Amino acid sequence: MPVTPRTTQGVLELLPSDQIVFQQMLETIRHGFERFGFLPIETPVFELVDVLLTKSGGETEKQVYFVQSTGALAKGDKPELALRFDLTVPLARYVAEHEAKLNFPFRRYQIQRVYRGERAQKGRYREFYQCDIDVVGKDKLSIAYDSEVPALIYGIFTELAFGKFTIFVNNRKLLRGLMEVLQIEQQTEVLHEVDRLRKSGREKVEGLVAAICGPDKAKQLLDVLTQDWKAAIAPFEGTDNAILREGIDELRRVYTGTLALGVPEAFIQVDLSIVRGLDYYTGTVYETFLDAHPELGSICSGGRYENLAGLYTKSKLPGVGISIGVTRLLSHILDTQGEVKRSVAQAIILNFDPQLATEYAKLATELRAAGLNVEVYGEDDKPGKQFKYADRSGIPVAIVIGSQEHAEGVVTLQDLRLHENNKTKVPRAGVVAGVQALLDAHEAARRVGG
Amino acid sequence: MPVTPRTTQGVLELLPSDQIVFQQMLETIRHGFERFGFLPIETPVFELVDVLLTKSGGETEKQVYFVQSTGALAKGDKPELALRFDLTVPLARYVAEHEAKLNFPFRRYQIQRVYRGERAQKGRYREFYQCDIDVVGKDKLSIAYDSEVPALIYGIFTELAFGKFTIFVNNRKLLRGLMEVLQIEQQTEVLHEVDRLRKSGREKVEGLVAAICGPDKAKQLLDVLTQDWKAAIAPFEGTDNAILREGIDELRRVYTGTLALGVPEAFIQVDLSIVRGLDYYTGTVYETFLDAHPELGSICSGGRYENLAGLYTKSKLPGVGISIGVTRLLSHILDTQGEVKRSVAQAIILNFDPQLATEYAKLATELRAAGLNVEVYGEDDKPGKQFKYADRSGIPVAIVIGSQEHAEGVVTLQDLRLHENNKTKVPRAGVVAGVQALLDAHEAARRVGG
Repeated sequence: MPVTPRTTQGVLELLPSDQIVFQQMLETIRHGFERFGFLPIETPVFELVDVLLTKSGGETEKQVYFVQSTGALAKGDKPELALRFDLTVPLARYVAEHEAKLNFPFRRYQIQRVYRGERAQKGRYREFYQCDIDVVGKDKLSIAYDSEVPALIYGIFTELAFGKFTIFVNNRKLLRGLMEVLQIEQQTEVLHEVDRLRKSGREKVEGLVAAICGPDKAKQLLDVLTQDWKAAIAPFEGTDNAILREGIDELRRVYTGTLALGVPEAFIQVDLSIVRGLDYYTGTVYETFLDAHPELGSICSGGRYENLAGLYTKSKLPGVGISIGVTRLLSHILDTQGEVKRSVAQAIILNFDPQLATEYAKLATELRAAGLNVEVYGEDDKPGKQFKYADRSGIPVAIVIGSQEHAEGVVTLQDLRLHENNKTKVPRAGVVAGVQALLDAHEAARRVGG
Repeated sequence: MPVTPRTTQGVLELLPSDQIVFQQMLETIRHGFERFGFLPIETPVFELVDVLLTKSGGETEKQVYFVQSTGALAKGDKPELALRFDLTVPLARYVAEHEAKLNFPFRRYQIQRVYRGERAQKGRYREFYQCDIDVVGKDKLSIAYDSEVPALIYGIFTELAFGKFTIFVNNRKLLRGLMEVLQIEQQTEVLHEVDRLRKSGREKVEGLVAAICGPDKAKQLLDVLTQDWKAAIAPFEGTDNAILREGIDELRRVYTGTLALGVPEAFIQVDLSIVRGLDYYTGTVYETFLDAHPELGSICSGGRYENLAGLYTKSKLPGVGISIGVTRLLSHILDTQGEVKRSVAQAIILNFDPQLATEYAKLATELRAAGLNVEVYGEDDKPGKQFKYADRSGIPVAIVIGSQEHAEGVVTLQDLRLHENNKTKVPRAGVVAGVQALLDAHEAARRVGG
C-alpha cells in the first residue's frame, strides 16, 4: 500500500503558479538590497548547539529543532546541531568568525529560511523565509546608516506594489530619556504595556501603565507618546537629560535623512509609541504596515543595536538592520488574489506534425537565442489536448506549424489570452518578432488596464 | 568567556566576494532552466520520516539527518522529521501529493540544499546545493523530452564559461539488449564493472567482466562498448532483440534531436559504456565532464526513469531529469582562481564633508533611480580610510564631492581599478552618465582582454 504523500504542518509549499509569484518577490527584494550595495551571504541551515543556544535558554530554546545523524541518534548522543531560528544569531557568529576578512562597516543581506519548533496553528510557520539586511560597524556606526534602512524598504515595497504602506520609526533612547525625565522607574514593565498601544488603544494601555507607576505619570507619558511627534518633543528641546537629547537628535536625523533619500513624507512616520521588543534594540526602531491591512501586523521590522556578537568576540560591533517577513506577506497576497495561471514559458511550439520535429527544434532554439522562454510540446497528442495543456499552463502564445503552414513557409501564432480573433499568420522568418509583438501588446494592455 | 564562533564541518560557507560568484552561477542556472519553460518549485527542508525513508532503508538511511523539536527530544520520542537528502524523493512526494493540480507533462526545476549525515572528509559535504530539472509525464513521456536535457545543459554550461565540456549520453535499454544478445545473464554485476570503465580502463574492467561471464563474452561486450558508437551499433541494426532495437532507436533520436536543438557535435558524445547507477534509470542516461578536469567526475548527471512516485501513488509517472552538482563545481572554481575582490556596489559616494550629507543622499537616490548599485560612506573618517574601505571592498568607482567641488558645481569620479590618471571631473548634472561611462569602459576592456 502506498505511503500517503504529505508534508508536516506549518510549512508553506506552493504550486508552481504561486511559486513564480514568490520567486519574483524574492528577486525584487534581492535587487532592492543590492541597489544599496548590500552583500549577499548564506549560512548553513544548522549551527552547532553550543554556538546557537548560548543566549537566553528561555523561550527561544523551547522552539528549536535539533538535528542528529542516524548514527548519533542510535547512540543516544546529545544533539550537536540545531536548525537556525532566525538570521541574527548566524550573522553574529558569521561576523565574529570571519571578522578579520570582512570590511567594516559590513553591509550584508541574507535571504534564507528559518525554523521554529512551533505547535502547528494557523499563521504559525515551522519553516519560513526571512530577508534580512544589516550594517555592522566596528567600534562605531554612524547614525547616517539608520536613514538608509527606511529608504531601502521604501524602494522595495514600492516595487512590490502591495498597496500603500507606512514605515514607522522611533528611537529607544528617546523613550528611555522620557521615562527618566518623568521619573518612571519601572521602564521594562511600562514599555511592555506601551508596546501594545496599537492593538489595545490608549485607554486600556494608560490604565495598565497607571497600575505600574501611577495615573499622573501614566497620563503624562501617554500624552507625549500619542501626540504628533514634533509637538511632543518641542517641550524637551534643550533638556538636561543627555539620553533624551540624544534620542531626539538621532530621531530627527533619521527622519530628515530618510526624506533626503527620496522617501515621500506620506510613507515615513515617526511614532513615539513604537517599542519593538524589549531588550535587543537600543536606538532607532522600525515597523512597517500595509495601510489597508493593519491586521497583518508589522511586515518589516528592525532597529539599531549596541553590540551584535558579544557572545563570540570581544570586538564591539554595533549595527542596524531590518527583516522582511516575506512568508506571511506572500501568504496574504495569495489569500487575497483569485487563482491566477502563471507560466515561465512565454510561448509553446505545438506538435501538429511529428515529421516536423527538427523544424520545431530549430525554431525553439531561435526563439531561445532571442531571449524568450520557450517550450516544445513533445507528445504526439491531438491538437485539442495540446491546446488544453497550453491553456491550463497559462502560456500566453501558441505557435502552430502544421504540414500546410510548413509548405507555405508560414507560422500561425495564437494568443491564448484572447478567445476570438486571436490568430495571426506570419512568415517563418518573422516568428521571433511576431511572438515578441504579441507579448509586448499584452504587457502594454496590462499596464493601461491597471 | 566567549563561545568560539564556528560551523560544523562539511558545510561551504562563503565570504561575500565568493558568495557573489555563487549567486551569479545560480542565476545563470535558473535562467537556463527558465529558457526552456521549466517551472520553479521549492519543498520544505524536512519531510515526514515515513514519507522520506520508505524506499530502501539501506545506505541512504544511514546518512539521514533526523529533526526533533525541543519538546519531542525531551520526551524521547522517535523523530517524526528528517532533512531531505536529495531533490528526487521530495519531487516524487510533491507530484503525488499535488497530482490533480499539476499539468502533465510537468516540467519543474528546483534549486535547494540537500543534507547527508556524512562523516566529515575532504570533498564530502553535509550540506550542498542541487539544481535539478525533471519532465514528468502521466502514463507516458515522449522520447522528444530526452533531447531537451542536453540542449539545456549546453546552454547553461556555455554561459557559465568554465571551459570546454562534453555531455555524454547513452541508453540503458541498449546495454540491456546488448547483454541479452551476447547471452550475458549477470547483468547487474557486469554493469557494476562497466560503470568503472572511465576510471579503471578497459584492461582491468575486461578482466573483471571475464571473471563474471567468461573471457569471450567479456571481450565481445567491451569491443562494442569502447568503439565509436555508430560503428558499434551497425552490426545490430535490424536485430531481433526488441529491447536492443528500442535502445538503438531512442539513442539515435536523442542524439539527432540534441543536434537539432543547436548543440554542436563537439559537445555531445555517445558513450556506450555509461551506466549511471544501477537500478533507477531505465533508458537515456547522461553524464557531463569538464574536458580539462575529468578528476572532478561528472558535474551534471541524470537520465530517464520508468516511474517516479510508485511509493506514493498508483499513477504511472515516467520522467527524465538531470541534476547539477553546483557546490562541488563552485568549490573547484574557487580553488582554481586567485583571490578576487567583488562588490555588489558599482559606486561609492565618499563622505568628504559631513555638511553635505543631504547632497550625498540626493545623488545616491539619483544614481539608484538610474539602475546603479550605490553605497554612501556614512562615517566621518579621514579620506585615506574611506578610500581603503572602497578599495578593499572592490568597488570600482568612487564619487568625491568635497566643499570645493560643491562650490564649483562639479564632482570628481575616481576609477579605483586604475592606479594613475584615474580621476575625472564632471559637472554635477553629468554624474550618472560619467559613472556609467567608467563602468562601460571597464566592461568593454574586460571583454577585449578576457
